[in-house]
Amino acid sequence: MISDKMKELVKNNSVIREMFEEGKNLKKIYGEENVYDFSLGNPSTPVPSEVNDSIIELLENQKDTIHGYTSNNGFEDVRNSVAISLNKKYNTNFNSNNIIMTVGAASGLNIVLKSILNKDEEVIVFAPYFSEYKCYIENYDGKIVIISPNEGNNFIPDLKELESKINNKTRGVIINNPNNPTGVVYDESFIKDLSEILVKKEKELKRDIYLISDEPYREIVYDGKKVPFITKYYNDTIVVYSYSKSLAIPGERIGYVLVQDEVKDSKDLITAITIANRVIGCVNAPSLMQKVVSKCVDITCDIEIYDKNRKLLYSKLKEYGFECIKPEGAFYLFVKSPTGDDKEFAIRAKKYNILVVPATSFGCKGYVRIAYCTNYSTIENSLESFKKLAEEYGIK
Amino acid sequence: MISDKMKELVKNNSVIREMFEEGKNLKKIYGEENVYDFSLGNPSTPVPSEVNDSIIELLENQKDTIHGYTSNNGFEDVRNSVAISLNKKYNTNFNSNNIIMTVGAASGLNIVLKSILNKDEEVIVFAPYFSEYKCYIENYDGKIVIISPNEGNNFIPDLKELESKINNKTRGVIINNPNNPTGVVYDESFIKDLSEILVKKEKELKRDIYLISDEPYREIVYDGKKVPFITKYYNDTIVVYSYSKSLAIPGERIGYVLVQDEVKDSKDLITAITIANRVIGCVNAPSLMQKVVSKCVDITCDIEIYDKNRKLLYSKLKEYGFECIKPEGAFYLFVKSPTGDDKEFAIRAKKYNILVVPATSFGCKGYVRIAYCTNYSTIENSLESFKKLAEEYGIK
Repeated sequence: MISDKMKELVKNNSVIREMFEEGKNLKKIYGEENVYDFSLGNPSTPVPSEVNDSIIELLENQKDTIHGYTSNNGFEDVRNSVAISLNKKYNTNFNSNNIIMTVGAASGLNIVLKSILNKDEEVIVFAPYFSEYKCYIENYDGKIVIISPNEGNNFIPDLKELESKINNKTRGVIINNPNNPTGVVYDESFIKDLSEILVKKEKELKRDIYLISDEPYREIVYDGKKVPFITKYYNDTIVVYSYSKSLAIPGERIGYVLVQDEVKDSKDLITAITIANRVIGCVNAPSLMQKVVSKCVDITCDIEIYDKNRKLLYSKLKEYGFECIKPEGAFYLFVKSPTGDDKEFAIRAKKYNILVVPATSFGCKGYVRIAYCTNYSTIENSLESFKKLAEEYGIK
Repeated sequence: MISDKMKELVKNNSVIREMFEEGKNLKKIYGEENVYDFSLGNPSTPVPSEVNDSIIELLENQKDTIHGYTSNNGFEDVRNSVAISLNKKYNTNFNSNNIIMTVGAASGLNIVLKSILNKDEEVIVFAPYFSEYKCYIENYDGKIVIISPNEGNNFIPDLKELESKINNKTRGVIINNPNNPTGVVYDESFIKDLSEILVKKEKELKRDIYLISDEPYREIVYDGKKVPFITKYYNDTIVVYSYSKSLAIPGERIGYVLVQDEVKDSKDLITAITIANRVIGCVNAPSLMQKVVSKCVDITCDIEIYDKNRKLLYSKLKEYGFECIKPEGAFYLFVKSPTGDDKEFAIRAKKYNILVVPATSFGCKGYVRIAYCTNYSTIENSLESFKKLAEEYGIK
């Protein structure tokens, strides 16, 4: 009854989402406080008060227009606020035309890929990568090409391998900075090297290659780290952003796509992305939330909360004998399975009511992802269980 | 730079959306009150006060969870409220598992079509049809098959033509009841005849054929007309609904897909649609709005307002000499071009600052669609211009 393509997807349903559903079931059995659900990037930090204050203000002052259709690319004043905020922060020169408001970053990536991909064209991703990228690329009959996880170099991708895999089928490269699931931040020198390769390959192959930068965690960085603003380094760059993490509102599905004027034929591409937003059925980003983010464009939730979680979990897991990458951004801890088997690790952790995601689904065997965007108390309460798990493995 | 498929779409961009953008420009030039924009189904009726009251209540009582990710099919309590409301209204027997909350009906149609269509399979639509159906079907490499507009019978589709066009490539039939753009409501006897043909053809071809019922206008009916609730008549029925029109909140992008248990392998289909919702990037329907519609599930905006608009516009246009279909539902008036040329009609109307959509884009030459979901004053103020237009045509 269902299409062949969907049969594949049903068979390989998202491990993350299965964990999320399983977590809900376990909580029903054992009680909310006795399940340590680190499966999903669902922020538990408080939504900044400005978000809900903005909603109330908008309902008071704009209630007649706030719920109506907007242009397919979004309210013009909202797109303008986004552009101004970026210009202020990054010393750029965007205007409202460079911005398309979207139903979150996931939808943003979809409409970008729909706009650029022909059948069998390739999009390169760096493993470990957000597992949904594969679905998004294949939605438009593209092919995912994976650069191996560079375990030896703190998961900073090997650019030689990238260079060797760019060919006359390559249409784009997706980077995710800060990275989900490793928590690694790519610094300026990496971005420069990456851009240099893309510029060289564009010339060599006489082919436009887009750098698609998926940046929902852009503001979530620690220890003074900075995420280089990508448009400055490579012309054919498309930025995909979501307010899900920065404002802790992932359920609301609000983000944007940014196409700078320096992108070749940028106007055509912006038109295509806008139309794609309509025809995949989003029509426009949720209208009230567009106006809300426009009022909160310079605000983030309290990053200190994540940092506190990060410090506690990282230091304790190291103390217990686990090997893990020290996160520089996002809110994921990437932990090596003591036996090298990530699926077995996840199953064993579940015995202690700890839910983690095996990184095989991110294209990186041997690790699990722990989303530490939970309450601090969840982390505190989980420590005893992690300790027991370490003891069971005999690594302590 | 953009994909071949999108090049086509950019070339044939939505006439409706172009009109909407043009309307905004004309309003800047001539002033809001001097442009009679009947292009888009953007309700101008007040949003029921319960909608905004619910938002405020939710922000007070559930502010810690209201903006978070939900399951890909939506909050369980919300799906349950939707099922209960339908059961009460239509004496059905749905539960939360039959409902998938979606980013409006447009997105609902997309995830349904993604779930059922293989390459080159056919989906039948009745002209005149909502022009986006073609895009949605082709998004998944399906083929649109059009049943000719049945002008001689008040645009009630010719079911013999339907029967002749069902073959071993047919995967679905889309109906839109009440119809956009004609305003016609298909009654029970039509639905029964349609179902009989589908049952017969399913047996004959040994093939599952879905009836996909797109029902954003279900509650918007006049003169005591009723829309038969479709699931009772044909087992393999999928209902796609949106709150855009019933609650006058089209910008918020909230609706649902309903798959009844009687659909063959309904559980697999529901799983596929849920996963499709995730992988096309919607992830989940906007979370706050899910909760809002759950609280407003038995409410509609004031249909009387549309009825008042309908009566004035229909009676006056008839008086001026225009031929038009008397709308029984939705909020569109389908008007015949005096010369038989709909595009010329739209251009000539624009000289009088009247914006209407030529129905060629709905697969029905010779008519234009007038969306009368405007303010009453817009209709009142437009009458003089319609009169002049009639005089110019010499039909009065």
